[in-house]
Amino acid sequence: MENLTSATPRQVRQMIRRNELVRPTAGLCQGHVQANLAIVPKDLAYDFLLFCQRNPKPCPILDVTDVGSPEPRLLGPGADLRYDIPKYRVWKNGEMVDEPMDVARYWRDDLVAFLIGCSFTFETALLKAMVPVRHIEEDCNVPMYLTNIACRPAGFFHGSTVVSMRPMPPELAIRAVQVTSRFPGVHGAPLHIGDPAAIGIRDVNKPDFGDAVTIKPGEVPVFWACGVTPQAVAMAVKPELMITHSPGYMFIGDLRDEELAVL
Amino acid sequence: MENLTSATPRQVRQMIRRNELVRPTAGLCQGHVQANLAIVPKDLAYDFLLFCQRNPKPCPILDVTDVGSPEPRLLGPGADLRYDIPKYRVWKNGEMVDEPMDVARYWRDDLVAFLIGCSFTFETALLKAMVPVRHIEEDCNVPMYLTNIACRPAGFFHGSTVVSMRPMPPELAIRAVQVTSRFPGVHGAPLHIGDPAAIGIRDVNKPDFGDAVTIKPGEVPVFWACGVTPQAVAMAVKPELMITHSPGYMFIGDLRDEELAVL
Repeated sequence: MENLTSATPRQVRQMIRRNELVRPTAGLCQGHVQANLAIVPKDLAYDFLLFCQRNPKPCPILDVTDVGSPEPRLLGPGADLRYDIPKYRVWKNGEMVDEPMDVARYWRDDLVAFLIGCSFTFETALLKAMVPVRHIEEDCNVPMYLTNIACRPAGFFHGSTVVSMRPMPPELAIRAVQVTSRFPGVHGAPLHIGDPAAIGIRDVNKPDFGDAVTIKPGEVPVFWACGVTPQAVAMAVKPELMITHSPGYMFIGDLRDEELAVL
Repeated sequence: MENLTSATPRQVRQMIRRNELVRPTAGLCQGHVQANLAIVPKDLAYDFLLFCQRNPKPCPILDVTDVGSPEPRLLGPGADLRYDIPKYRVWKNGEMVDEPMDVARYWRDDLVAFLIGCSFTFETALLKAMVPVRHIEEDCNVPMYLTNIACRPAGFFHGSTVVSMRPMPPELAIRAVQVTSRFPGVHGAPLHIGDPAAIGIRDVNKPDFGDAVTIKPGEVPVFWACGVTPQAVAMAVKPELMITHSPGYMFIGDLRDEELAVL
Protein backbone atom coordinates (compact mmCIF):
# COMPACT_ATOMS: atom_id res chain seq x y z
CA MET A 1 0.00 0.00 0.00
CA GLU A 2 2.79 2.47 0.83
CA ASN A 3 4.16 1.96 -2.67
CA LEU A 4 0.75 2.77 -4.14
CA THR A 5 0.53 5.96 -2.06
CA SER A 6 3.68 7.30 -3.66
CA ALA A 7 3.41 5.59 -7.07
CA THR A 8 2.98 7.70 -10.18
CA PRO A 9 -0.44 7.88 -11.81
CA ARG A 10 1.00 6.26 -14.93
CA GLN A 11 2.30 3.27 -12.93
CA VAL A 12 -1.00 2.77 -11.15
CA ARG A 13 -3.01 3.15 -14.37
CA GLN A 14 -0.87 0.43 -15.96
CA MET A 15 -1.62 -1.91 -13.04
CA ILE A 16 -5.30 -1.07 -13.39
CA ARG A 17 -5.19 -1.70 -17.14
CA ARG A 18 -3.77 -5.20 -16.46
CA ASN A 19 -6.56 -5.79 -13.87
CA GLU A 20 -3.91 -6.08 -11.14
CA LEU A 21 -5.49 -3.42 -8.95
CA VAL A 22 -9.24 -3.60 -8.41
CA ARG A 23 -9.97 -1.49 -5.34
CA PRO A 24 -11.20 1.97 -4.36
CA THR A 25 -8.55 4.55 -5.22
CA ALA A 26 -8.65 6.81 -2.12
CA GLY A 27 -5.13 7.32 -0.84
CA LEU A 28 -3.41 6.19 -4.05
CA CYS A 29 -0.88 8.44 -5.84
CA GLN A 30 -1.18 11.11 -3.17
CA GLY A 31 -0.96 14.66 -4.48
CA HIS A 32 -2.55 13.80 -7.83
CA VAL A 33 -5.97 14.52 -9.23
CA GLN A 34 -8.65 11.83 -9.16
CA ALA A 35 -11.75 11.96 -11.35
CA ASN A 36 -15.23 10.53 -11.81
CA LEU A 37 -16.27 9.24 -15.22
CA ALA A 38 -19.49 9.76 -17.15
CA ILE A 39 -19.73 8.65 -20.78
CA VAL A 40 -22.77 9.51 -22.91
CA PRO A 41 -23.59 9.36 -26.63
CA LYS A 42 -22.87 12.55 -28.58
CA ASP A 43 -26.57 13.33 -29.00
CA LEU A 44 -26.82 13.78 -25.20
CA ALA A 45 -23.43 15.46 -24.78
CA TYR A 46 -24.61 19.08 -25.05
CA ASP A 47 -27.32 18.61 -22.42
CA PHE A 48 -24.90 16.75 -20.16
CA LEU A 49 -22.17 19.38 -20.51
CA LEU A 50 -24.73 22.08 -19.73
CA PHE A 51 -25.97 20.05 -16.74
CA CYS A 52 -22.42 19.98 -15.39
CA GLN A 53 -21.92 23.67 -16.10
CA ARG A 54 -25.09 24.48 -14.14
CA ASN A 55 -24.12 22.18 -11.25
CA PRO A 56 -20.44 22.89 -10.66
CA LYS A 57 -20.45 21.68 -7.03
CA PRO A 58 -21.28 18.02 -7.82
CA CYS A 59 -20.04 18.08 -11.45
CA PRO A 60 -16.85 20.18 -11.85
CA ILE A 61 -15.54 19.18 -15.27
CA LEU A 62 -11.82 18.53 -15.59
CA ASP A 63 -11.67 17.06 -19.11
CA VAL A 64 -13.93 16.14 -22.03
CA THR A 65 -12.74 13.78 -24.75
CA ASP A 66 -13.27 14.38 -28.44
CA VAL A 67 -16.18 12.41 -29.89
CA GLY A 68 -15.20 8.74 -30.21
CA SER A 69 -11.84 9.16 -28.47
CA PRO A 70 -11.18 7.40 -25.12
CA GLU A 71 -8.06 9.51 -24.44
CA PRO A 72 -8.27 12.27 -21.78
CA ARG A 73 -5.68 14.56 -23.30
CA LEU A 74 -5.62 17.16 -20.53
CA LEU A 75 -5.76 14.88 -17.49
CA GLY A 76 -3.80 11.84 -18.71
CA PRO A 77 -2.27 11.93 -22.21
CA GLY A 78 -1.84 8.35 -23.41
CA ALA A 79 -4.43 6.98 -20.97
CA ASP A 80 -7.41 4.98 -22.27
CA LEU A 81 -10.69 5.50 -20.45
CA ARG A 82 -11.96 2.10 -21.66
CA TYR A 83 -9.40 0.30 -19.46
CA ASP A 84 -7.71 2.66 -16.99
CA ILE A 85 -10.35 2.72 -14.26
CA PRO A 86 -10.51 -0.27 -11.86
CA LYS A 87 -14.25 -0.83 -12.10
CA TYR A 88 -17.06 0.56 -14.27
CA ARG A 89 -20.82 0.64 -14.25
CA VAL A 90 -22.82 0.32 -17.46
CA TRP A 91 -26.30 1.87 -17.42
CA LYS A 92 -28.95 1.08 -20.02
CA ASN A 93 -32.29 2.89 -19.79
CA GLY A 94 -31.63 3.69 -16.13
CA GLU A 95 -30.69 0.15 -15.08
CA MET A 96 -27.17 -0.89 -14.14
CA VAL A 97 -26.60 -3.86 -16.46
CA ASP A 98 -22.92 -4.57 -15.86
CA GLU A 99 -20.04 -3.72 -13.51
CA PRO A 100 -17.00 -4.74 -15.55
CA MET A 101 -13.27 -4.04 -15.20
CA ASP A 102 -13.10 -2.59 -18.70
CA VAL A 103 -15.69 -1.25 -21.13
CA ALA A 104 -14.01 -2.03 -24.45
CA ARG A 105 -17.00 -4.06 -25.64
CA TYR A 106 -19.40 -1.18 -24.92
CA TRP A 107 -17.32 1.48 -26.68
CA ARG A 108 -18.83 3.23 -29.71
CA ASP A 109 -17.50 5.91 -32.00
CA ASP A 110 -20.27 8.33 -30.96
CA LEU A 111 -19.33 8.34 -27.26
CA VAL A 112 -18.01 11.34 -25.32
CA ALA A 113 -16.28 10.89 -21.95
CA PHE A 114 -16.50 13.48 -19.19
CA LEU A 115 -14.01 13.46 -16.30
CA ILE A 116 -15.41 15.17 -13.23
CA GLY A 117 -13.28 16.16 -10.24
CA CYS A 118 -13.27 13.75 -7.26
CA SER A 119 -12.96 14.74 -3.60
CA PHE A 120 -10.25 12.09 -3.11
CA THR A 121 -8.04 14.77 -4.68
CA PHE A 122 -8.26 17.13 -1.69
CA GLU A 123 -7.68 14.36 0.86
CA THR A 124 -3.91 14.81 0.60
CA ALA A 125 -4.41 18.46 1.64
CA LEU A 126 -6.77 17.39 4.46
CA LEU A 127 -4.21 14.88 5.78
CA LYS A 128 -1.45 17.51 5.64
CA ALA A 129 -3.73 19.80 7.69
CA MET A 130 -4.17 17.00 10.28
CA VAL A 131 -7.83 16.49 9.35
CA PRO A 132 -8.71 12.77 9.64
CA VAL A 133 -9.93 10.88 6.57
CA ARG A 134 -11.77 7.97 8.15
CA HIS A 135 -12.18 5.76 5.07
CA ILE A 136 -8.42 5.90 4.51
CA GLU A 137 -7.82 5.06 8.19
CA GLU A 138 -10.27 2.15 7.92
CA ASP A 139 -9.02 1.11 4.46
CA CYS A 140 -12.48 1.02 2.92
CA ASN A 141 -14.52 3.02 0.39
CA VAL A 142 -15.85 6.50 1.25
CA PRO A 143 -19.54 6.53 2.28
CA MET A 144 -21.81 8.25 -0.28
CA TYR A 145 -25.51 9.13 -0.04
CA LEU A 146 -28.42 10.19 -2.21
CA THR A 147 -29.81 13.51 -0.91
CA ASN A 148 -32.90 15.67 -1.44
CA ILE A 149 -30.78 18.51 -2.89
CA ALA A 150 -32.10 18.96 -6.44
CA CYS A 151 -29.64 19.72 -9.22
CA ARG A 152 -30.46 22.47 -11.69
CA PRO A 153 -31.95 20.70 -14.73
CA ALA A 154 -30.49 21.05 -18.22
CA GLY A 155 -32.42 19.65 -21.16
CA PHE A 156 -32.68 15.87 -20.79
CA PHE A 157 -30.86 15.76 -17.46
CA HIS A 158 -32.16 16.28 -13.94
CA GLY A 159 -31.73 14.53 -10.61
CA SER A 160 -30.56 14.83 -7.03
CA THR A 161 -27.13 15.54 -5.64
CA VAL A 162 -25.04 12.69 -4.25
CA VAL A 163 -22.67 13.53 -1.37
CA SER A 164 -19.62 11.93 0.21
CA MET A 165 -19.13 12.08 3.97
CA ARG A 166 -16.14 12.38 6.29
CA PRO A 167 -16.68 12.51 10.08
CA MET A 168 -14.49 14.75 12.25
CA PRO A 169 -14.54 16.94 15.39
CA PRO A 170 -16.22 20.35 14.86
CA GLU A 171 -12.99 22.34 15.07
CA LEU A 172 -11.51 20.23 12.28
CA ALA A 173 -14.71 20.66 10.25
CA ILE A 174 -13.93 24.37 10.22
CA ARG A 175 -10.38 23.62 9.12
CA ALA A 176 -11.76 21.27 6.45
CA VAL A 177 -13.90 24.11 5.04
CA GLN A 178 -10.79 26.26 4.76
CA VAL A 179 -8.66 23.54 3.19
CA THR A 180 -11.19 22.29 0.64
CA SER A 181 -12.35 25.77 -0.42
CA ARG A 182 -9.04 25.99 -2.28
CA PHE A 183 -10.14 23.14 -4.57
CA PRO A 184 -13.41 24.04 -6.35
CA GLY A 185 -12.37 21.82 -9.27
CA VAL A 186 -12.82 18.74 -7.06
CA HIS A 187 -16.06 19.85 -5.27
CA GLY A 188 -14.53 22.57 -3.08
CA ALA A 189 -16.11 23.47 0.26
CA PRO A 190 -18.63 21.13 1.91
CA LEU A 191 -22.34 21.31 1.05
CA HIS A 192 -23.47 20.55 4.59
CA ILE A 193 -22.18 20.00 8.13
CA GLY A 194 -24.16 18.12 10.76
CA ASP A 195 -27.67 16.64 10.72
CA PRO A 196 -27.91 14.11 7.86
CA ALA A 197 -31.73 14.32 7.89
CA ALA A 198 -31.56 18.01 6.87
CA ILE A 199 -30.39 16.91 3.40
CA GLY A 200 -32.62 13.85 3.20
CA ILE A 201 -30.29 11.16 4.51
CA ARG A 202 -32.25 8.71 6.68
CA ASP A 203 -29.44 6.64 8.17
CA VAL A 204 -25.86 7.85 8.02
CA ASN A 205 -24.73 4.31 8.84
CA LYS A 206 -26.30 2.96 5.64
CA PRO A 207 -24.67 4.74 2.71
CA ASP A 208 -26.23 4.34 -0.74
CA PHE A 209 -22.78 3.84 -2.28
CA GLY A 210 -19.44 2.81 -0.74
CA ASP A 211 -18.94 1.70 2.86
CA ALA A 212 -20.08 2.90 6.29
CA VAL A 213 -17.31 4.36 8.46
CA THR A 214 -17.00 4.88 12.21
CA ILE A 215 -18.32 8.18 13.57
CA LYS A 216 -16.66 8.70 16.95
CA PRO A 217 -18.34 10.44 19.92
CA GLY A 218 -18.20 14.21 19.47
CA GLU A 219 -17.63 14.03 15.74
CA VAL A 220 -19.91 15.65 13.15
CA PRO A 221 -20.49 14.31 9.66
CA VAL A 222 -19.23 16.68 6.95
CA PHE A 223 -20.78 16.29 3.49
CA TRP A 224 -19.25 17.21 0.15
CA ALA A 225 -20.95 17.19 -3.27
CA CYS A 226 -19.94 14.03 -5.10
CA GLY A 227 -19.24 13.09 -8.71
CA VAL A 228 -21.44 10.03 -8.37
CA THR A 229 -24.29 12.49 -9.00
CA PRO A 230 -24.41 11.56 -12.73
CA GLN A 231 -25.25 7.99 -11.66
CA ALA A 232 -28.24 9.26 -9.68
CA VAL A 233 -29.14 11.25 -12.78
CA ALA A 234 -28.86 8.11 -14.94
CA MET A 235 -31.31 6.36 -12.61
CA ALA A 236 -33.68 9.35 -12.87
CA VAL A 237 -33.67 10.12 -16.59
CA LYS A 238 -32.82 6.69 -18.06
CA PRO A 239 -30.58 7.49 -21.03
CA GLU A 240 -30.23 4.76 -23.67
CA LEU A 241 -26.59 4.31 -22.57
CA MET A 242 -24.39 5.84 -19.89
CA ILE A 243 -21.08 4.42 -18.71
CA THR A 244 -19.64 5.55 -15.37
CA HIS A 245 -16.94 4.48 -12.97
CA SER A 246 -18.02 2.35 -10.00
CA PRO A 247 -18.29 4.69 -6.97
CA GLY A 248 -14.89 5.06 -5.31
CA TYR A 249 -13.02 3.42 -8.21
CA MET A 250 -11.65 6.53 -9.88
CA PHE A 251 -9.51 7.67 -12.77
CA ILE A 252 -6.13 8.92 -11.51
CA GLY A 253 -4.78 11.76 -13.63
CA ASP A 254 -1.29 13.15 -14.15
CA LEU A 255 -2.26 16.61 -12.90
CA ARG A 256 -1.10 17.61 -9.40
CA ASP A 257 -3.72 18.64 -6.83
CA GLU A 258 -1.98 22.00 -6.33
CA GLU A 259 -2.30 22.76 -10.05
CA LEU A 260 -6.07 22.89 -9.45
CA ALA A 261 -5.92 25.03 -6.30
CA VAL A 262 -7.33 28.54 -6.57
CA LEU A 263 -5.13 30.18 -3.94
CA MET B 1 -22.87 59.04 -12.70
CA GLU B 2 -22.94 58.61 -8.91
CA ASN B 3 -26.51 57.42 -9.18
CA LEU B 4 -25.48 54.83 -11.75
CA THR B 5 -22.71 53.57 -9.47
CA SER B 6 -25.20 52.72 -6.77
CA ALA B 7 -28.22 51.94 -8.99
CA THR B 8 -29.64 48.43 -9.02
CA PRO B 9 -28.94 46.21 -12.01
CA ARG B 10 -32.66 46.12 -12.78
CA GLN B 11 -32.87 49.94 -12.89
CA VAL B 12 -29.86 50.21 -15.17
CA ARG B 13 -31.08 47.41 -17.45
CA GLN B 14 -34.40 49.25 -17.85
CA MET B 15 -32.54 52.42 -18.89
CA ILE B 16 -30.50 50.34 -21.32
CA ARG B 17 -33.64 48.69 -22.71
CA ARG B 18 -35.07 52.18 -23.44
CA ASN B 19 -31.76 53.17 -25.13
CA GLU B 20 -31.24 55.85 -22.47
CA LEU B 21 -27.79 54.57 -21.49
CA VAL B 22 -25.38 53.76 -24.29
CA ARG B 23 -21.93 53.71 -22.72
CA PRO B 24 -19.32 51.29 -21.38
CA THR B 25 -20.56 49.75 -18.14
CA ALA B 26 -17.39 49.80 -16.00
CA GLY B 27 -18.18 51.35 -12.64
CA LEU B 28 -21.95 50.93 -12.92
CA CYS B 29 -23.97 49.07 -10.24
CA GLN B 30 -20.86 48.51 -8.14
CA GLY B 31 -20.77 45.19 -6.34
CA HIS B 32 -22.75 43.38 -9.03
CA VAL B 33 -21.67 40.88 -11.65
CA GLN B 34 -21.06 42.02 -15.22
CA ALA B 35 -20.98 39.61 -18.15
CA ASN B 36 -19.89 39.24 -21.76
CA LEU B 37 -22.35 37.89 -24.33
CA ALA B 38 -21.87 35.30 -27.05
CA ILE B 39 -24.88 33.97 -28.95
CA VAL B 40 -24.53 31.07 -31.41
CA PRO B 41 -26.96 28.77 -33.24
CA LYS B 42 -27.76 25.52 -31.42
CA ASP B 43 -25.79 23.44 -33.92
CA LEU B 44 -22.61 25.22 -32.73
CA ALA B 45 -23.58 25.35 -29.05
CA TYR B 46 -21.91 22.10 -27.95
CA ASP B 47 -18.57 23.03 -29.51
CA PHE B 48 -18.82 26.55 -28.07
CA LEU B 49 -19.70 25.30 -24.57
CA LEU B 50 -16.78 22.88 -24.74
CA PHE B 51 -14.50 25.68 -25.97
CA CYS B 52 -15.47 27.73 -22.90
CA GLN B 53 -15.02 24.73 -20.59
CA ARG B 54 -11.51 24.18 -21.99
CA ASN B 55 -10.62 27.88 -21.71
CA PRO B 56 -11.96 28.95 -18.32
CA LYS B 57 -9.59 31.92 -17.94
CA PRO B 58 -10.97 33.91 -20.91
CA CYS B 59 -14.40 32.20 -21.00
CA PRO B 60 -15.76 31.49 -17.49
CA ILE B 61 -19.43 30.70 -18.08
CA LEU B 62 -21.95 32.27 -15.71
CA ASP B 63 -25.22 31.38 -17.48
CA VAL B 64 -26.50 29.63 -20.59
CA THR B 65 -30.03 30.23 -21.86
CA ASP B 66 -32.35 27.48 -23.01
CA VAL B 67 -32.50 27.13 -26.80
CA GLY B 68 -34.53 30.01 -28.25
CA SER B 69 -34.91 31.83 -24.93
CA PRO B 70 -33.34 35.29 -24.45
CA GLU B 71 -33.81 35.17 -20.64
CA PRO B 72 -30.75 34.55 -18.44
CA ARG B 73 -32.56 32.85 -15.60
CA LEU B 74 -29.60 32.55 -13.23
CA LEU B 75 -27.99 35.93 -13.75
CA GLY B 76 -31.02 38.14 -14.36
CA PRO B 77 -34.49 36.58 -14.18
CA GLY B 78 -36.85 38.71 -16.27
CA ALA B 79 -34.04 40.26 -18.30
CA ASP B 80 -34.06 40.01 -22.10
CA LEU B 81 -30.69 39.56 -23.77
CA ARG B 82 -32.06 40.98 -27.06
CA TYR B 83 -32.41 44.45 -25.48
CA ASP B 84 -30.66 44.68 -22.10
CA ILE B 85 -27.09 45.32 -23.26
CA PRO B 86 -26.18 48.86 -24.37
CA LYS B 87 -24.50 47.90 -27.64
CA TYR B 88 -24.13 44.65 -29.61
CA ARG B 89 -22.00 43.35 -32.44
CA VAL B 90 -23.46 41.06 -35.10
CA TRP B 91 -20.98 38.75 -36.85
CA LYS B 92 -21.77 36.95 -40.10
CA ASN B 93 -19.14 34.62 -41.55
CA GLY B 94 -16.46 36.33 -39.46
CA GLU B 95 -17.34 39.89 -40.47
CA MET B 96 -18.94 42.40 -38.13
CA VAL B 97 -22.02 43.48 -40.09
CA ASP B 98 -23.84 45.59 -37.51
CA GLU B 99 -23.34 47.29 -34.13
CA PRO B 100 -26.93 47.90 -32.99
CA MET B 101 -28.48 48.82 -29.65
CA ASP B 102 -30.75 45.80 -29.73
CA VAL B 103 -30.72 42.53 -31.66
CA ALA B 104 -34.45 41.76 -31.82
CA ARG B 105 -34.38 41.59 -35.63
CA TYR B 106 -31.54 39.04 -35.58
CA TRP B 107 -33.12 36.75 -32.99
CA ARG B 108 -34.02 33.17 -34.05
CA ASP B 109 -35.58 30.32 -32.15
CA ASP B 110 -32.45 28.17 -32.58
CA LEU B 111 -30.14 30.61 -30.77
CA VAL B 112 -28.39 29.94 -27.45
CA ALA B 113 -26.92 32.80 -25.39
CA PHE B 114 -23.82 32.37 -23.24
CA LEU B 115 -23.00 34.88 -20.50
CA ILE B 116 -19.30 34.90 -19.67
CA GLY B 117 -17.86 36.60 -16.59
CA CYS B 118 -16.41 40.12 -17.08
CA SER B 119 -13.47 41.59 -15.19
CA PHE B 120 -15.48 44.77 -14.50
CA THR B 121 -16.99 42.61 -11.73
CA PHE B 122 -13.79 42.50 -9.65
CA GLU B 123 -13.11 46.21 -10.04
CA THR B 124 -15.23 46.99 -6.99
CA ALA B 125 -12.93 44.71 -4.97
CA LEU B 126 -9.84 46.34 -6.53
CA LEU B 127 -11.10 49.82 -5.64
CA LYS B 128 -11.83 48.73 -2.06
CA ALA B 129 -8.23 47.43 -1.88
CA MET B 130 -6.99 50.87 -3.06
CA VAL B 131 -5.83 49.47 -6.42
CA PRO B 132 -6.39 52.11 -9.14
CA VAL B 133 -8.70 51.36 -12.06
CA ARG B 134 -7.46 53.82 -14.65
CA HIS B 135 -10.33 53.55 -17.16
CA ILE B 136 -12.79 54.39 -14.38
CA GLU B 137 -10.59 57.35 -13.29
CA GLU B 138 -10.43 58.53 -16.91
CA ASP B 139 -14.11 57.73 -17.60
CA CYS B 140 -13.41 55.73 -20.75
CA ASN B 141 -13.52 52.12 -21.92
CA VAL B 142 -10.95 49.55 -20.67
CA PRO B 143 -8.13 48.88 -23.16
CA MET B 144 -8.24 45.36 -24.67
CA TYR B 145 -5.73 43.60 -26.92
CA LEU B 146 -5.41 40.58 -29.17
CA THR B 147 -2.52 38.38 -27.94
CA ASN B 148 -0.49 35.43 -29.22
CA ILE B 149 -1.81 33.19 -26.40
CA ALA B 150 -3.64 30.38 -28.20
CA CYS B 151 -6.85 29.04 -26.72
CA ARG B 152 -7.35 25.28 -26.51
CA PRO B 153 -9.44 24.36 -29.54
CA ALA B 154 -12.80 22.57 -29.28
CA GLY B 155 -14.43 21.26 -32.45
CA PHE B 156 -15.29 24.22 -34.69
CA PHE B 157 -13.80 26.82 -32.37
CA HIS B 158 -10.23 28.04 -32.02
CA GLY B 159 -8.51 31.39 -31.70
CA SER B 160 -6.33 33.63 -29.58
CA THR B 161 -6.93 35.06 -26.14
CA VAL B 162 -7.99 38.68 -25.76
CA VAL B 163 -6.81 40.51 -22.62
CA SER B 164 -7.83 43.63 -20.74
CA MET B 165 -5.18 45.87 -19.16
CA ARG B 166 -4.97 47.96 -16.02
CA PRO B 167 -1.74 49.88 -15.24
CA MET B 168 -0.54 50.19 -11.63
CA PRO B 169 2.62 50.35 -9.47
CA PRO B 170 4.30 46.94 -8.97
CA GLU B 171 3.35 46.65 -5.29
CA LEU B 172 -0.29 47.12 -6.20
CA ALA B 173 0.06 44.56 -9.00
CA ILE B 174 0.87 42.04 -6.28
CA ARG B 175 -2.20 43.16 -4.33
CA ALA B 176 -4.26 42.90 -7.51
CA VAL B 177 -3.18 39.26 -7.95
CA GLN B 178 -4.39 38.53 -4.43
CA VAL B 179 -7.69 40.38 -4.83
CA THR B 180 -8.64 39.00 -8.23
CA SER B 181 -7.64 35.40 -7.45
CA ARG B 182 -10.81 35.28 -5.35
CA PHE B 183 -12.91 35.72 -8.50
CA PRO B 184 -12.16 32.93 -11.00
CA GLY B 185 -15.71 33.26 -12.37
CA VAL B 186 -14.82 36.67 -13.81
CA HIS B 187 -11.30 35.77 -15.12
CA GLY B 188 -9.54 35.52 -11.73
CA ALA B 189 -5.82 36.25 -11.43
CA PRO B 190 -3.96 38.09 -14.21
CA LEU B 191 -2.52 36.21 -17.18
CA HIS B 192 0.54 38.43 -17.43
CA ILE B 193 2.34 41.32 -15.71
CA GLY B 194 4.82 43.57 -17.50
CA ASP B 195 6.22 43.47 -21.05
CA PRO B 196 3.31 43.62 -23.53
CA ALA B 197 5.52 42.19 -26.31
CA ALA B 198 5.88 38.93 -24.38
CA ILE B 199 2.23 38.14 -25.15
CA GLY B 200 2.26 39.53 -28.67
CA ILE B 201 1.06 43.09 -28.04
CA ARG B 202 2.97 45.49 -30.29
CA ASP B 203 1.86 48.84 -28.90
CA VAL B 204 0.18 49.06 -25.50
CA ASN B 205 -1.00 52.57 -26.43
CA LYS B 206 -3.03 51.20 -29.36
CA PRO B 207 -5.58 48.74 -27.97
CA ASP B 208 -7.48 46.53 -30.42
CA PHE B 209 -10.73 47.17 -28.53
CA GLY B 210 -11.75 49.94 -26.11
CA ASP B 211 -9.65 53.01 -25.30
CA ALA B 212 -6.00 53.71 -24.48
CA VAL B 213 -5.38 54.80 -20.86
CA THR B 214 -2.52 56.69 -19.20
CA ILE B 215 0.37 54.56 -17.93
CA LYS B 216 2.20 56.68 -15.37
CA PRO B 217 5.98 56.53 -14.76
CA GLY B 218 6.85 53.51 -12.63
CA GLU B 219 3.60 51.68 -13.41
CA VAL B 220 3.46 48.21 -14.98
CA PRO B 221 0.65 47.01 -17.23
CA VAL B 222 -1.30 44.10 -15.72
CA PHE B 223 -3.21 41.89 -18.15
CA TRP B 224 -6.29 39.77 -17.45
CA ALA B 225 -7.97 37.26 -19.78
CA CYS B 226 -11.00 38.91 -21.37
CA GLY B 227 -14.45 37.75 -22.43
CA VAL B 228 -14.01 39.51 -25.78
CA THR B 229 -12.08 36.35 -26.72
CA PRO B 230 -15.18 34.86 -28.46
CA GLN B 231 -15.10 37.86 -30.83
CA ALA B 232 -11.51 37.04 -31.80
CA VAL B 233 -12.70 33.46 -32.25
CA ALA B 234 -15.57 34.65 -34.49
CA MET B 235 -13.03 36.47 -36.66
CA ALA B 236 -10.91 33.30 -36.85
CA VAL B 237 -13.50 30.58 -37.49
CA LYS B 238 -16.25 32.59 -39.24
CA PRO B 239 -19.48 31.04 -37.97
CA GLU B 240 -22.59 31.69 -40.06
CA LEU B 241 -23.92 33.88 -37.21
CA MET B 242 -22.58 35.02 -33.86
CA ILE B 243 -23.99 37.86 -31.79
CA THR B 244 -21.86 39.43 -29.06
CA HIS B 245 -21.88 42.52 -26.89
CA SER B 246 -19.74 45.44 -28.05
CA PRO B 247 -16.49 45.35 -26.02
CA GLY B 248 -16.97 47.18 -22.71
CA TYR B 249 -20.77 47.36 -23.09
CA MET B 250 -21.75 44.55 -20.76
CA PHE B 251 -24.75 42.77 -19.34
CA ILE B 252 -25.22 43.70 -15.66
CA GLY B 253 -26.63 40.81 -13.63
CA ASP B 254 -28.47 40.65 -10.33
CA LEU B 255 -25.81 38.46 -8.70
CA ARG B 256 -23.45 40.11 -6.21
CA ASP B 257 -19.70 39.94 -6.84
CA GLU B 258 -19.14 38.29 -3.46
CA GLU B 259 -21.55 35.48 -4.37
CA LEU B 260 -18.96 34.45 -6.99
CA ALA B 261 -15.92 34.74 -4.71
CA VAL B 262 -14.14 31.49 -3.85
CA LEU B 263 -12.80 32.52 -0.45
